[in-house]
Amino acid sequence: MGDCKIGILGCAGRMGRMLIAATHDRAGCAVVGGTEPAGSPSFGKDLGELAGLGPIGILAAEDASALFTASDVVIDFTVPAASVAHADMAAESGTALLIGTTGLTGDQIAMIEAAGNKAPILIAANMSLGVNLLLEVVEQVAAALDEDYDIEVLEMHHRHKVDSPSGTALALGKAAAAGRGVDLEAVADKVRDGIVGARKRGDIGFATLRGGDVSGEHSVIFAADGERVILSHKASNREVFSRGAITAAQWLNGRPAGVYSMKDVLGLSK
Amino acid sequence: MGDCKIGILGCAGRMGRMLIAATHDRAGCAVVGGTEPAGSPSFGKDLGELAGLGPIGILAAEDASALFTASDVVIDFTVPAASVAHADMAAESGTALLIGTTGLTGDQIAMIEAAGNKAPILIAANMSLGVNLLLEVVEQVAAALDEDYDIEVLEMHHRHKVDSPSGTALALGKAAAAGRGVDLEAVADKVRDGIVGARKRGDIGFATLRGGDVSGEHSVIFAADGERVILSHKASNREVFSRGAITAAQWLNGRPAGVYSMKDVLGLSK
Amino acid sequence: MGDCKIGILGCAGRMGRMLIAATHDRAGCAVVGGTEPAGSPSFGKDLGELAGLGPIGILAAEDASALFTASDVVIDFTVPAASVAHADMAAESGTALLIGTTGLTGDQIAMIEAAGNKAPILIAANMSLGVNLLLEVVEQVAAALDEDYDIEVLEMHHRHKVDSPSGTALALGKAAAAGRGVDLEAVADKVRDGIVGARKRGDIGFATLRGGDVSGEHSVIFAADGERVILSHKASNREVFSRGAITAAQWLNGRPAGVYSMKDVLGLSK
Amino acid sequence: MGDCKIGILGCAGRMGRMLIAATHDRAGCAVVGGTEPAGSPSFGKDLGELAGLGPIGILAAEDASALFTASDVVIDFTVPAASVAHADMAAESGTALLIGTTGLTGDQIAMIEAAGNKAPILIAANMSLGVNLLLEVVEQVAAALDEDYDIEVLEMHHRHKVDSPSGTALALGKAAAAGRGVDLEAVADKVRDGIVGARKRGDIGFATLRGGDVSGEHSVIFAADGERVILSHKASNREVFSRGAITAAQWLNGRPAGVYSMKDVLGLSK
Repeated sequence: MGDCKIGILGCAGRMGRMLIAATHDRAGCAVVGGTEPAGSPSFGKDLGELAGLGPIGILAAEDASALFTASDVVIDFTVPAASVAHADMAAESGTALLIGTTGLTGDQIAMIEAAGNKAPILIAANMSLGVNLLLEVVEQVAAALDEDYDIEVLEMHHRHKVDSPSGTALALGKAAAAGRGVDLEAVADKVRDGIVGARKRGDIGFATLRGGDVSGEHSVIFAADGERVILSHKASNREVFSRGAITAAQWLNGRPAGVYSMKDVLGLSK
Repeated sequence: MGDCKIGILGCAGRMGRMLIAATHDRAGCAVVGGTEPAGSPSFGKDLGELAGLGPIGILAAEDASALFTASDVVIDFTVPAASVAHADMAAESGTALLIGTTGLTGDQIAMIEAAGNKAPILIAANMSLGVNLLLEVVEQVAAALDEDYDIEVLEMHHRHKVDSPSGTALALGKAAAAGRGVDLEAVADKVRDGIVGARKRGDIGFATLRGGDVSGEHSVIFAADGERVILSHKASNREVFSRGAITAAQWLNGRPAGVYSMKDVLGLSK
Repeated sequence: MGDCKIGILGCAGRMGRMLIAATHDRAGCAVVGGTEPAGSPSFGKDLGELAGLGPIGILAAEDASALFTASDVVIDFTVPAASVAHADMAAESGTALLIGTTGLTGDQIAMIEAAGNKAPILIAANMSLGVNLLLEVVEQVAAALDEDYDIEVLEMHHRHKVDSPSGTALALGKAAAAGRGVDLEAVADKVRDGIVGARKRGDIGFATLRGGDVSGEHSVIFAADGERVILSHKASNREVFSRGAITAAQWLNGRPAGVYSMKDVLGLSK
Repeated sequence: MGDCKIGILGCAGRMGRMLIAATHDRAGCAVVGGTEPAGSPSFGKDLGELAGLGPIGILAAEDASALFTASDVVIDFTVPAASVAHADMAAESGTALLIGTTGLTGDQIAMIEAAGNKAPILIAANMSLGVNLLLEVVEQVAAALDEDYDIEVLEMHHRHKVDSPSGTALALGKAAAAGRGVDLEAVADKVRDGIVGARKRGDIGFATLRGGDVSGEHSVIFAADGERVILSHKASNREVFSRGAITAAQWLNGRPAGVYSMKDVLGLSK
């Protein structure tokens, strides 16, 4: 049995280039093609050059359908409308599809999941294995502990980040709320400034630090009288996200049609 | 239905006094008696006075069998030989028994577990809910991650602690080893001093800090290229152990005969 | 030369009792008296009993002037108006006075400092040696680093705390601003919620965590491209504040008239 | 006044390339030349190409003397014997010299310092501003606190590091020992394994973590009853070392002859 043949949609973007490099570095995987949308200045460029690896003899193309035919697994970090179209191509070809596109609406997710009847499809907003594992563990710990344990989510990112709290911090808060059986919106406590009174029982608090070039650090704190349980993730670079994607692609290769998540990759699904 | 009636063996010792206070503070629980071994200078003393609560009208006694008859749950932080005898009393009376005694041999544990045929019995070396939860989570995370993730256990305790690494640090290391399917003894790395060479893949490292009055802090670090997952526990005082015991006692009250663990209390058993 | 004779104003309050115990525990120090304001239910009670030490034969009295006569150093954690009156008594008797009262106005501080012409007087809002040392170090580090280093202040306290950020966090922010030569009010960034844009160069950010029984943890983070310097303090209990007061009292004993600060005690003044 | 003209000895090595890039990125600085030792395969290569910047029209040369003539500041991360020769060239030309070479013997340092009579020379084993600042602060804090504060040094590095504790951890321990007025060798506590007894008052402990790709994290902990002061540094990448070197070079430009240290750059010398 040969290498897992990986095709990369949006191969000249920042994430696309990192995916080329991560595939190249992974034993048992090979890049077999990449596409860019119509009008891209990168058509015809060598994928290896784009990734800083030196030439590998494969050029950026436009025909996504052909990429599905040539690949075992296609990876898609593009835009929502494109990802819906790609899901249809996966259904037609039966090729596995890994989607890391963010900002998908509920309707778009439903359309993609429908394609899961005919091809293996995995959607994940964050491909880091560690973050996905943390999401699982946070939900579980929140379910095991009662409201004597105050839940706080702390995150730090580089000075350029524009949104607070981070999407991953909010996802961690949602996981904690789900474990506790409450709605995050009803208990989130994102601003504390001045004489705000004692902490409200059952709240989930958020605190945000910004500075330097921090890639991303998240902690969920469960604080009771006498003890704290703290579950943390620290990214030391952004390659962890492309490496996680390749691990997921390898896992997805050869699966039956269906809709999968990073929980399945991590073996945490029940 | 009335309060959970709790009896405390070894009620005048340090842990016994904390258990009296913790029971007194817990809604739905009441202290119904306490015993001391023959010859104790504390016979006849009021249990509330022993715990610094003021008198509660219940005096330290000697007859452990009577305590089993009077209680819904008996709590035992004594010595191994006594705990074996107490398990027999539990079997005779059918009363629930919670054992926090440390240093039990395999044979003693087997004798105690045999009594679990006739009464509900729970044994745990550490009654902190947080530490037990962490043990569970560490095993699970270690099972989900491969050896690309280096495992390190870090702990800090007060300056008076005589053993390194702490028992809880070793238990965390065992949990990690179990999750990974290896034997801790074969992979533990407890000393690094000088030119020791690169870290060996698959090892589980330990690092120990001592200083001040730190009650106990433990972290298990899973460090890979690009990311770290860190699972931590921090005790802010020792009452967390007596509070955990009362929570376990409440959970044990009314259970059928059987041998239970803190995993059951936390709802983490499969 | 005998022990440092310490008198305690407000000896039956929470801090007063802790000061009695801390004095009793310190080699070279002795409690020689304590007062309560008129109408206190604690008159005539033994100071040792108040502090949980057992009787020491010294009873809570009302005459503060007499306490100044009998003491080498008088310690005052009372209320602003009372502290101003106590400073006058110090000036009359020449007795050293240590003031930990909070909420003093600028005028009140000026009146107290005027008394420093005739007696050694030390004012400090926080008597923990560690926090005062951190304040010094933060100012110094902020002066040594330029605005390539983003400054963030993080703190965590127990769930009962009503104000955010903590007074100590604000003091740390002020120390950082002073080191950098800016006004904290002009650069403080206390709320981040939603799409707030990239961090503004030169800002000093604050983040607040609340939960459990945390006595108080503060960190000042200097985050640049490539590195972070983090300066932290963690209190494990409140006794650290009474211990710090006794250390300051011992230092103050025998000094010439003048106004002193914790910087002098720590040997950090230039 | 024009840019600070920087010459780089050993310009094709790993550190040399990073120094080219860091100079290029710094406002007010320009690379004016670079040399390699005789026989280097990099002769004639463009320095910008070596650093991944694209060509800048300056080629790697061999004549170090010419580099001193052409530069305002020469940077030397080479080998001990070469650095001694470079110090002589600095003395002859009067050009500022920044030395980051490690492993210098006491004799070699003395020879280099002698050249400081005729040119400004700065030697530092670690050019990170943050680490050097931490060294200063640790010494100061250790001097301000007595042995009630247990000192512990914790470090974590990537899995490839072969020595424990790290050189920087040892330097931090030396700084703490110097502040306290003791000899590190006499108080260092590098191994704790088994029943080692209570911590010895006055000791300085070391703990080492290894894993993943951690660039380098160091903490010095001062732990007393009731509080901890923790002073930490975290490197997020290795560029922090080249950036620190350029900052030091800019500071050194135009100084009178003399021997300087990173303390001078940071404005921390007394």
